[in-house]
Amino acid sequence: GTGADNDLYINQAIVFIEDAIQYRSINHRVDSKSLWLYRWYYSRTCQWILSLTITIILALAFIEKPSSLTVTSDVRYRLPAWNPPCGLTESIELLCFLVFVVDVSVKSYLIGWEEFWKNKWLMAYILTLIVSLTDWIVSLSFFCTENVRIRRILRPFFLLQNSSMMKKTLKSINSTLPEMASVVLLLAVHLSLFTMFAMLLFARTKDGQQDKEWVVYFRNLPESLTSLLVLLTTANNPDVMIPAYSKNRAYSIFFILFTVLGNLFLMNLLTAIIYNQFRGYLLKSVQSSLFRRRLGIRAAFEVLSSLKETPANAQQSYVSIGALLRVLQKVDMDFRCKQAIMRSLTTCSCDQLSAVQFQKLFEELDKDAIRQHPPSPEYQSHFMQKMQFAFGHPYFGYVGNVVALANIVSICVVLVMDADKQPSERDDYFLGAINCFFILYYLLEMLLKILAMGLKRYLSYPSNRFDGLLTVILLVLEIATFAVYKFPHPGWRPEFVGLLSLWDMVRLVNMLIVFRFLRIIPNMKFMALVVTTLLDLVKNLRAFAGILVVVFYTFALTGIMLFKGAVVPLGNIRYVGNRLSASWLFFNLCNLMVGVILYFKEKRDFMALSGHFQAEVTYCLLYLLSVNLICRWAKIYFVAWWLISSVIWVNLFVALLLENFIHKWDRRCHREPLSDIEYQRTVELMFRDVLEEPTEEELMEKLHQHPHLQLCR
Amino acid sequence: GTGADNDLYINQAIVFIEDAIQYRSINHRVDSKSLWLYRWYYSRTCQWILSLTITIILALAFIEKPSSLTVTSDVRYRLPAWNPPCGLTESIELLCFLVFVVDVSVKSYLIGWEEFWKNKWLMAYILTLIVSLTDWIVSLSFFCTENVRIRRILRPFFLLQNSSMMKKTLKSINSTLPEMASVVLLLAVHLSLFTMFAMLLFARTKDGQQDKEWVVYFRNLPESLTSLLVLLTTANNPDVMIPAYSKNRAYSIFFILFTVLGNLFLMNLLTAIIYNQFRGYLLKSVQSSLFRRRLGIRAAFEVLSSLKETPANAQQSYVSIGALLRVLQKVDMDFRCKQAIMRSLTTCSCDQLSAVQFQKLFEELDKDAIRQHPPSPEYQSHFMQKMQFAFGHPYFGYVGNVVALANIVSICVVLVMDADKQPSERDDYFLGAINCFFILYYLLEMLLKILAMGLKRYLSYPSNRFDGLLTVILLVLEIATFAVYKFPHPGWRPEFVGLLSLWDMVRLVNMLIVFRFLRIIPNMKFMALVVTTLLDLVKNLRAFAGILVVVFYTFALTGIMLFKGAVVPLGNIRYVGNRLSASWLFFNLCNLMVGVILYFKEKRDFMALSGHFQAEVTYCLLYLLSVNLICRWAKIYFVAWWLISSVIWVNLFVALLLENFIHKWDRRCHREPLSDIEYQRTVELMFRDVLEEPTEEELMEKLHQHPHLQLCR
Repeated sequence: GTGADNDLYINQAIVFIEDAIQYRSINHRVDSKSLWLYRWYYSRTCQWILSLTITIILALAFIEKPSSLTVTSDVRYRLPAWNPPCGLTESIELLCFLVFVVDVSVKSYLIGWEEFWKNKWLMAYILTLIVSLTDWIVSLSFFCTENVRIRRILRPFFLLQNSSMMKKTLKSINSTLPEMASVVLLLAVHLSLFTMFAMLLFARTKDGQQDKEWVVYFRNLPESLTSLLVLLTTANNPDVMIPAYSKNRAYSIFFILFTVLGNLFLMNLLTAIIYNQFRGYLLKSVQSSLFRRRLGIRAAFEVLSSLKETPANAQQSYVSIGALLRVLQKVDMDFRCKQAIMRSLTTCSCDQLSAVQFQKLFEELDKDAIRQHPPSPEYQSHFMQKMQFAFGHPYFGYVGNVVALANIVSICVVLVMDADKQPSERDDYFLGAINCFFILYYLLEMLLKILAMGLKRYLSYPSNRFDGLLTVILLVLEIATFAVYKFPHPGWRPEFVGLLSLWDMVRLVNMLIVFRFLRIIPNMKFMALVVTTLLDLVKNLRAFAGILVVVFYTFALTGIMLFKGAVVPLGNIRYVGNRLSASWLFFNLCNLMVGVILYFKEKRDFMALSGHFQAEVTYCLLYLLSVNLICRWAKIYFVAWWLISSVIWVNLFVALLLENFIHKWDRRCHREPLSDIEYQRTVELMFRDVLEEPTEEELMEKLHQHPHLQLCR
Repeated sequence: GTGADNDLYINQAIVFIEDAIQYRSINHRVDSKSLWLYRWYYSRTCQWILSLTITIILALAFIEKPSSLTVTSDVRYRLPAWNPPCGLTESIELLCFLVFVVDVSVKSYLIGWEEFWKNKWLMAYILTLIVSLTDWIVSLSFFCTENVRIRRILRPFFLLQNSSMMKKTLKSINSTLPEMASVVLLLAVHLSLFTMFAMLLFARTKDGQQDKEWVVYFRNLPESLTSLLVLLTTANNPDVMIPAYSKNRAYSIFFILFTVLGNLFLMNLLTAIIYNQFRGYLLKSVQSSLFRRRLGIRAAFEVLSSLKETPANAQQSYVSIGALLRVLQKVDMDFRCKQAIMRSLTTCSCDQLSAVQFQKLFEELDKDAIRQHPPSPEYQSHFMQKMQFAFGHPYFGYVGNVVALANIVSICVVLVMDADKQPSERDDYFLGAINCFFILYYLLEMLLKILAMGLKRYLSYPSNRFDGLLTVILLVLEIATFAVYKFPHPGWRPEFVGLLSLWDMVRLVNMLIVFRFLRIIPNMKFMALVVTTLLDLVKNLRAFAGILVVVFYTFALTGIMLFKGAVVPLGNIRYVGNRLSASWLFFNLCNLMVGVILYFKEKRDFMALSGHFQAEVTYCLLYLLSVNLICRWAKIYFVAWWLISSVIWVNLFVALLLENFIHKWDRRCHREPLSDIEYQRTVELMFRDVLEEPTEEELMEKLHQHPHLQLCR
């Protein structure tokens, strides 16, 4: 019937508008039941359950068998980590897999059979699930004693496929790969030509005294290649040159040439290429997001315009305001946006909307929320008004900054004075007294500010919230200190009582004071710019961070599988063994994805390697490769690791930072008058000025290609 | 008289056009005698003498007293360097100073008294000369035994003031300094806050066992600051974290936060800022060059239009073609340009030129030379034509590349096979035989190409010149080998004869073959792009390199003065002494400005430090600062050195590379059809598309402000 049709159209419009808001594709089934399923699937609860499942399955690695989640990393003192019984983690895993199976089935059903075959991500999803389940069955049938667990390496895929932003970023990275591969190829050519040159230059000579260079670094082809590769990471930079250099200064020319060409030119060229390529692709992906949004809105318009209640118009289609209001009431969207759209709808004089008007209405979605601070309280008393003026004035904030600086300086002075004292000689009186004074001032400042601005206005500024929170914590700590250790007096060295010693309490207070000093940031223009850029970057970096997590996870688990028992102790080195190599690589995952740690006693007291940033990876390469601790596979593993985590990821980061900063900087120059710091949180907003609006023809063409929606016209 | 006036005008026009060609300012005296002096001063001979003088005075440091220009850098085997007698270097210096005095007098006279007072560079030049001469007199009166020689540190100024490009670049760097200072300030704040945090976090505890972190890295304020500064250079990256980390994994969060904020964010922010700022300023300076050129041309037009022979015209001024031809004949300019201008003059139908036409005529100066290759010879014989077709075809070149690759591979195989053999076991027969074959092929290839293309056309390609030269050298070497050591045969291990042993000869040949393999570069599109970018960069980098030389020179000589005898040998370290510290810093200068070397024997066989690139400087900081070898002054010296050479210079380099590459890349995308590689050698040409032409009003206003030229109208 017409009523059912109308209900269907309304529901379709609701879903299309929600798609537009979330930048989702509109190519899904549009019959009533599917729409209900679709809304259920993308409801907050369902998506939250899905995210939780992904988190759980990723976190499983922390308690699974070769885990090293202990307080100390020192194998000498470390207690054995808890080993879950066989079947515990496996049953949790099975639950997760079941959720994923439901997820993939719903997704596949919703996009329809034809689209399913085109969607490589979904196919890969199903394949991953099949492999994982098979591996799970194998694992259980061996009672968890098998060594190779493929499903662990596949886990990060679930994270990857669930985020459209990450998929987009991966696509961007994928598009830059050919260019990157060219430079990496160039690096390889550079490396191999120089290796041959080096082997010819530093050949074995007839008198054994003179060929130190040959013995240490260029004994054979793999050795030479390694030496020069490590030189490319600048880890062995002066060392590799020294034996030859001490023979003849001219040999240094070879190393200088290699370093200048490889490090200064080719490596930076990689930065340039990644920056150049990535810039374009980021813009492109944002452009496609915009297209999805416009398409969703347009689709909603088209279905609403085919409502029977709308009078047919030969020339143009229209949407009645009543229908739109019905749709809007049911749409799940940001409250502020909904209010704004409703407001402009009710103030609209006409009772029908054309496509252009409809589209314009929803441009509210693209706008920033302009945050309005609540007003200050209005006092009657003349004295209070003066107080309000005085303590609401920015100068009062500056005085507070100066006091905070004075506090920092005083702490610094005490630290310098106490540096060489024994802990037993230390007198905590002075620090205790001054901190007490300063914290009282901070409390006073907070109260006066609240008085002047009113609590609501005070709390509406993030800097005040930061300030107030820290002041309250400091106050609580100080009161606790006095309650436990009494008031400070000269020679104040009480015995240890309660949870923390007095010295620890004072340290904690001092640390918080140092941290509180960051409140000066918004007062310094350049610093504020830098900090807002960094905050933007962090927001934009989520997709990158996700991909990084995927890479780390895969590398860590691959490492565990590859190097189980591969660390062979050398000579008089303390035996560390099997467990270490696993925990060492697992550390990647455990410690906020930080590093690789290898721990043993040699001539140095201890030597530890961790691989996250360039230098760390560099260290890894230097020591691991030169010490020849691990077999040749480790070399390849670490070179791949270095290339991906250090070279490519760092360069991507630099590219994003450059892009973000230059954009911000330009805007700052253009929009000098704006006094408030403008937070631009998303990639979409960053590029808003350069984005192109899709044309009507493009939108309609795309709509007509929709696999499930039959438009009347 | 009118004739004399006319001659003056002609001369003025000549000089103005020459100014325009060289991008010089036209604000100099314009009377006849001054013009003669001006042309004499800017003649090639004079400028060559000036450059030579600057080179000599800079090179003096290599033979002056604390020089270390010896073959080996090993103090154990090194012969004492030659010490010139007192008075020898001093008299050369005096000669140089005299040249500079003449230079500064002529320059000051030419720009005139009023301009002189505005020109800070000239004032500084005079001041430098006065100080240098005073120091020279002091030096001689002490018979060269004085320690402090200020004039040495001032020497690089002569290099600086002589290059307008370097002055411009310095101005650009100067303009970015405030922004850089902001980031450096931010880094300082970051560093000091984290230092305080670290001192509070890693304080001395009551049980002495647990505070390894405090003992090694955070004993007092300077120590802590140093530890974290070195961490910022990533040199002590895992080490500094390990004692705390082995106590509790959570401590790593502190170090990770510090590294991520400092290294990943702030350091890269510096790159972004320098890139962003520098981009603008480079364009600006190129824009001002263009203005100078247009102004010179316009000035020439104005003086020529006031020639009496030109009919007065109320509305517009004109220049007769005859006058311009007379000027052109005397102007010292690129032959190709002159020809092109003459040609368009003679084909011009009118006999007078307006200002616009005049300006347009000289736009030839802005154009690239389009290199035309001479034609191939035309053979009569049908066979020869076929030969020509076959060997002139690009495929023949590809075959040559494949053969070169095969040669490289064969050398590689031999190297791998011979890697573990004793030199006495080595059989040179195989390598000798295959090289002989390959070199014959190369010779044949060269001859056939010459046959197909003709000698002139063959030589007009740079890749062919490279190829041919190496082939000839290889041939000569091979013939020499056979002449000395006979033809190769199995078991070919002749005794050492002549200058080089057979093995050395073979190695030399192999190295040349590896080098010759670079001929493949123009055949690979991406490689060709990269290589041309690098070549451009080298051209554009001359000014940078000059400034780098200035900085290195100053640092090296300051270091020598500061640390004379400051290296105090520790414990059982072999005494290296006074001389070393001098030579060590002097090495900066000696070895193509490469590094700092410190050489002593401890537990390791030897440890050498050199400071040019990040990692090297990093090493310096790590070892020098942690070993505490040198007093606190050295710390400041090395931190300054690290900031300038490593942080700022490398970032400037990256900025220039990014700029250059992105520009080039964009152009490549636009101009895909162009098959020949286009060399864009100068900054001016790189920016040509974005430059703005100065307007007529701007030019005329500037002309009327000329201090010496009175225009009639």
